Amino acid sequence: MRLSHMMEDMARDARDASRQLRRMGREQKDDALRLMAKRLLEHQEEIIEENQKDLPLAREVGLSPAMIDRLTLSPSVIADMAGGLREVAGLPDPVGEITGMWKRPNGLQVGRVRIPLGVIGFIYESRPNVTVDAAGLCLKSGNAVILKGGSEAIHSNIILGRLLAEALKETGVPEKAIQVIPTTNREAVNILIGLDEWIDVIIPRGGEGLIRFVADHSRIPVLKHYKGVCHVYVDQSAPLNMAEEICFNAKVQRPGVCNAMETLLVHEAVAPEFLPRMVRRFRDAGVEIRGCPRCLALIPDIRPAEEADWPAEFLDLILAVKIVTDMDEALDHIETYGSRHTEAIITSDYGRSQRFLAEVDSSVVLVNASTRFNDGNQLGLGAEIGINTSKLHAFGPMGLEELTTTKFIVYGQGQTRK
Amino acid sequence: MRLSHMMEDMARDARDASRQLRRMGREQKDDALRLMAKRLLEHQEEIIEENQKDLPLAREVGLSPAMIDRLTLSPSVIADMAGGLREVAGLPDPVGEITGMWKRPNGLQVGRVRIPLGVIGFIYESRPNVTVDAAGLCLKSGNAVILKGGSEAIHSNIILGRLLAEALKETGVPEKAIQVIPTTNREAVNILIGLDEWIDVIIPRGGEGLIRFVADHSRIPVLKHYKGVCHVYVDQSAPLNMAEEICFNAKVQRPGVCNAMETLLVHEAVAPEFLPRMVRRFRDAGVEIRGCPRCLALIPDIRPAEEADWPAEFLDLILAVKIVTDMDEALDHIETYGSRHTEAIITSDYGRSQRFLAEVDSSVVLVNASTRFNDGNQLGLGAEIGINTSKLHAFGPMGLEELTTTKFIVYGQGQTRK
Repeated sequence: MRLSHMMEDMARDARDASRQLRRMGREQKDDALRLMAKRLLEHQEEIIEENQKDLPLAREVGLSPAMIDRLTLSPSVIADMAGGLREVAGLPDPVGEITGMWKRPNGLQVGRVRIPLGVIGFIYESRPNVTVDAAGLCLKSGNAVILKGGSEAIHSNIILGRLLAEALKETGVPEKAIQVIPTTNREAVNILIGLDEWIDVIIPRGGEGLIRFVADHSRIPVLKHYKGVCHVYVDQSAPLNMAEEICFNAKVQRPGVCNAMETLLVHEAVAPEFLPRMVRRFRDAGVEIRGCPRCLALIPDIRPAEEADWPAEFLDLILAVKIVTDMDEALDHIETYGSRHTEAIITSDYGRSQRFLAEVDSSVVLVNASTRFNDGNQLGLGAEIGINTSKLHAFGPMGLEELTTTKFIVYGQGQTRK
Repeated sequence: MRLSHMMEDMARDARDASRQLRRMGREQKDDALRLMAKRLLEHQEEIIEENQKDLPLAREVGLSPAMIDRLTLSPSVIADMAGGLREVAGLPDPVGEITGMWKRPNGLQVGRVRIPLGVIGFIYESRPNVTVDAAGLCLKSGNAVILKGGSEAIHSNIILGRLLAEALKETGVPEKAIQVIPTTNREAVNILIGLDEWIDVIIPRGGEGLIRFVADHSRIPVLKHYKGVCHVYVDQSAPLNMAEEICFNAKVQRPGVCNAMETLLVHEAVAPEFLPRMVRRFRDAGVEIRGCPRCLALIPDIRPAEEADWPAEFLDLILAVKIVTDMDEALDHIETYGSRHTEAIITSDYGRSQRFLAEVDSSVVLVNASTRFNDGNQLGLGAEIGINTSKLHAFGPMGLEELTTTKFIVYGQGQTRK
């Protein structure tokens, strides 16, 4: 009961702060962002000290060394966080942009103007640098944010939230624009997603379990992505060297992320030439291959793929491989097993490149480029708060603009409806 | 159990149909829309016959004469429905529009292209013409739709759905692109909003109870508007004749709709001159006035407003009236009691017009025009499937473009991520 009262107060404060943020000019928001960066650097010893309190518990609950590494704050990680805030300060302010204006026959001038969403509830796991990134993006786009990080990072998140809020206050921005929920109580997530009177959007970031839970139980609209089961289709006309480089990059460069390739589809005409050398290179890099029966006929010593491998997001050095008879079979496979995240075709055929772009129903569809480019920074949005694989609001990576919406403004001279 | 199987089949069929619709050109969709219109006119006797079966039950369950009137299909109503379909055929096709394209430093060309949402579940009450309107808009925007109308209109909706689907089939469009759920079983709504594997968006249209139920229980994202508590603020600089005409239009022209004015806010400087004559005119038109204490001091014989009147959507000839000390009080009142739907200011002061447009957080904000203009047709969107008062995806009236989303397309030359 006490927790829910505290969180209602936080949400109400966020709503009040968002009302002030709405009309705040770019300069003041950018000043705050730069001071936030400065404060992080000035207080890095204190941050590291608090971060050290998180690490023993993280080891105790059995987090993997890789997870503990991502949790650990060093001077260079803190410098990166500060650099990120300064970068966001340098990006254009999406708020106030007039996206269109037109005149109606009765003389009304109707326009659309970009406005912040309002209050964002951001739920995430582990890495404390996400606290700083999300706070910066929300502030720049004129939104108040309530941050619920993982319990492993609670001390780190609390100190970061305090430093950021102090910087806000010093620059005349309401300090309640950035609030960290100061508890490891898991009930806080349940409460947060029920506060629909004050919160406009929930953005969860983390494992599929967390995201499904939030999406299934939230009374507030959710922007989410469940998983990335990304495909590369190597067409019969593919330049095979290019195909090899792109497939290798898509699988190996960073296998644990959502835009890594999980399934490789190869046209039967090039499979005999392409697959043996590609598989050899993957195996040299430690990638386990799980192949369809036709793959096995070509390369007998690979593991047979099971049905469960086709819709799987391995997030690891594992790759499902299937030989297809034609592009239709590739498109059907993607339609059946894909997650609408990212798919690429490697081809030198103009018509098939166009058909793939038109027919694949994913947030990012690429020709002759790595799936790893599905990322707000890489696509030129400037920054990214997450990737949305539901089609509403923003399909794909979400940058500053995607943290806004538009309202209609109407200039009249006394018009009434007939 | 049988119902849920049937509905899963419908949803799966809709998903298959949507895959074909995605790549359908404008001409074929427009041909289908025009044939749909033709079929309705050709079969009007049959439609009216089925509609007659709905009316006795409607009387039995005690629908008001106004509701029964809206439920009744006459040759002229059918002609209007057909005309609506032809109008939609004449509107531009939003699908395939490239909304932007840019080049990245590494040579990637990144673009955004407009695509259909996919499968829409549309839940509505009473009027069978909504069946036809919604089907037309969804088809034109490349979406498959599953329609769940009110049980009072079940015979009408079934015959309309059958005629529309036949027209689709004849023009080579998958007939499952438009499906009417052929049951009055209320469980159908529960099942529909759980079919998140196949349905992309739920759009409920009807009373607040229905919409809240759908929003609270749906596993699928919902585009909704709860209610329109629309305000007109008459500023101290308002041209009083203009203010009178706009306020009268906003309240009286069609009081039962969401964009009608529910609360009038008047600056104290003009209240003594403006309010008595305005109230007289309202009363002559049968409008009941519920006033704040300061109103009562000015016009003693009006009913005192209670706290519950300020957030009320009367949808009737009832108006809450409040005298405010300044624009800040008006803005605070709107922030506290408004529904983010539609608010208007009547003023001749440039600065205050700008401030009102900037600070009011509603889907449509007007200067010197009636709130009744919050409507897709009136604002120039061509048509409207509903109004969204949640800020995600489309804030305000939703036309064809709002039934689409965008995906990213990327043209590469072998780029990999470093």
